[in-house]
Amino acid sequence: MKISIERAALLKAVSQAQSVVERRNTIPILANVLIEAEGSDVMFRATDLDIEVVDKAPAQVERAGATTVSATTLHEIVRKLPDGALVTLTADAAAGRLTVEAGRSNFSLATLPKEDFPVMASSEYASNFSIEAAKLRRLFDKSKFAISTEETRYYLNGVYMHVSTGEDGPVLRCVATDGHRLARIDTGLPAGADEMPGVIVPRKTVGELRKLLDDDEMKIAVSVSETKVRFATPDITLTSKVIDGTFPDYTRVIPQGNTRKLEVDASDFARAVDRVATVSSERSRAVKLQLDEDRLILSVNAPDSGAAEEELAVSYNDERLEIGFNAKYLLEIASQVDRENAVFMFNSSGDPTLMREGNDMSAVYVVMPMRV
Amino acid sequence: MKISIERAALLKAVSQAQSVVERRNTIPILANVLIEAEGSDVMFRATDLDIEVVDKAPAQVERAGATTVSATTLHEIVRKLPDGALVTLTADAAAGRLTVEAGRSNFSLATLPKEDFPVMASSEYASNFSIEAAKLRRLFDKSKFAISTEETRYYLNGVYMHVSTGEDGPVLRCVATDGHRLARIDTGLPAGADEMPGVIVPRKTVGELRKLLDDDEMKIAVSVSETKVRFATPDITLTSKVIDGTFPDYTRVIPQGNTRKLEVDASDFARAVDRVATVSSERSRAVKLQLDEDRLILSVNAPDSGAAEEELAVSYNDERLEIGFNAKYLLEIASQVDRENAVFMFNSSGDPTLMREGNDMSAVYVVMPMRV
Repeated sequence: MKISIERAALLKAVSQAQSVVERRNTIPILANVLIEAEGSDVMFRATDLDIEVVDKAPAQVERAGATTVSATTLHEIVRKLPDGALVTLTADAAAGRLTVEAGRSNFSLATLPKEDFPVMASSEYASNFSIEAAKLRRLFDKSKFAISTEETRYYLNGVYMHVSTGEDGPVLRCVATDGHRLARIDTGLPAGADEMPGVIVPRKTVGELRKLLDDDEMKIAVSVSETKVRFATPDITLTSKVIDGTFPDYTRVIPQGNTRKLEVDASDFARAVDRVATVSSERSRAVKLQLDEDRLILSVNAPDSGAAEEELAVSYNDERLEIGFNAKYLLEIASQVDRENAVFMFNSSGDPTLMREGNDMSAVYVVMPMRV
Repeated sequence: MKISIERAALLKAVSQAQSVVERRNTIPILANVLIEAEGSDVMFRATDLDIEVVDKAPAQVERAGATTVSATTLHEIVRKLPDGALVTLTADAAAGRLTVEAGRSNFSLATLPKEDFPVMASSEYASNFSIEAAKLRRLFDKSKFAISTEETRYYLNGVYMHVSTGEDGPVLRCVATDGHRLARIDTGLPAGADEMPGVIVPRKTVGELRKLLDDDEMKIAVSVSETKVRFATPDITLTSKVIDGTFPDYTRVIPQGNTRKLEVDASDFARAVDRVATVSSERSRAVKLQLDEDRLILSVNAPDSGAAEEELAVSYNDERLEIGFNAKYLLEIASQVDRENAVFMFNSSGDPTLMREGNDMSAVYVVMPMRV
């Protein structure tokens, strides 16, 4: 194999590869990126056995072929090469080396045979559809904070992507929860997605997917089967196993009958919560909300370190209410609101509270109260 | 005590205080900042028993007095208050509380009696002089990278500031070394510094001092005794114990007879070293320099991961030479050169090498070679 490739194109491909590769590996080949050159393209493939990413980059292929080399080392080298450099990669299978040349720099890296690289088996997908990057980004960006980190509840360690029915008809829906808070984000169902099986997309896949979604107008091709999900741009294909488990029935967690409505500027609210939480001990970061006619008092009482109180002008026209929340959860859901006021719907101090942006039912959050 | 103070002034004073305070403390009072209000000023004092910082801020003092409160908590609160806020601090000695008020926020923090706060004993200083911030900054910024982190060689855990003789007469000199590399930085001796005893300024003090030196034109008042050093701006006074030990005789480490001269663009050199070092195993980051007529070849050979080589056009007119160095040390000294070419003076592959900026003898670095 011998190819010449622009440093920028190579860096982009290798960055994606090295981020999928796990830092600590007991299987040496999994630290490597598989480089395959044929025609006028080079494919860079990396995997952790659960996720596989394939990045296609334009290159001048002088001699077709394939090899594997440490993703981290190659990434570090390319990163440090000067902008605009033309990089030549030459594999010497007999010597087990890949030569990387650019300007007056010359590197010789240890390779492993391409035959040892575990390429993910191709699958039949039950559903194939296409969706704008911006829509997909919103679905995952606004739900991922609620993903559970508890390994024993592995079926909560991802975002549940499935087809459901929203207020205005069928939707593509992402839900995540850790039992303390929940996010439910909808977008109009793309054509061809009707038959999509519900899948739990693992946390790491959500992170890798995010890197494909920076260009708003880009169309993302999505393919889903019972066991796998694939996201593809023209250059990058990300394939991932989905979590083998059943996502719990979240619908009964979302309160329907909450009638006490609080409307508040989301960023003022977040800043105030952040301030009063300063005095609380790290463990139980409980913030108390006292609601009264158009007035909200946030307070924290931490016996050791002190107390804090802040008043906010809000819109509220119901009975007095006192309710406590984990400050971190409140901050996280308030920071999801980007355009409108945050609307909280309460029932009692012991019931789950619902939060949404203005009257927009396509992004709904639930947070469990704490005793304060 | 009751005072009103601008948020910006309070933040500046409390930032300095909380950075001196050690995160993990067995003595509760050491986590606190002592606030003393009198006249039209408020003093904020913090200590770790080795370093004491006192920051004077303008405030409206309604009721003189003093109290102590957690430096970290107060800093966090003030940091989160909106820009431009006016902050009122009210101490209630009977209740053991300090109230912090700003706008609609209200905090009540636990205090400890001011009598328990360990104020550093004042000393007689053998020498008092004044020096521009920019000069002092250069002395410490260019030497601190060489401070040793080995706790057993405690006398190397700081910068040795003393009076010496440079090429053009008496100088104020800072030296740091860890046995592998050494930095020796000079500046003209300020008036009144002649009698200054040589002192080893501890690493943490060097870091805290740096924050006082951002304003080039500011005059810094320096006071030195055998056991303490004090740096003062009009607002901030930093007092520190010095390391109780003898700094080794560094002069015999600085090679005098090195004649083989290499001249190289410092940033090209640093980038090339950084690139070839990518393939080396983390532990022995050895880079080999091969010097020949106006040519430098940098190379690394790491049996496991690979090899790297890069050629640089340089100025060199002596015999062929091969010499190895720790890549990290080379990078660090090359990054000290900011204006001119780096000049390396070699003797043999086993002897210490000297580096300076152009012909400037007021900043000299020594680095020990490695066998490659």
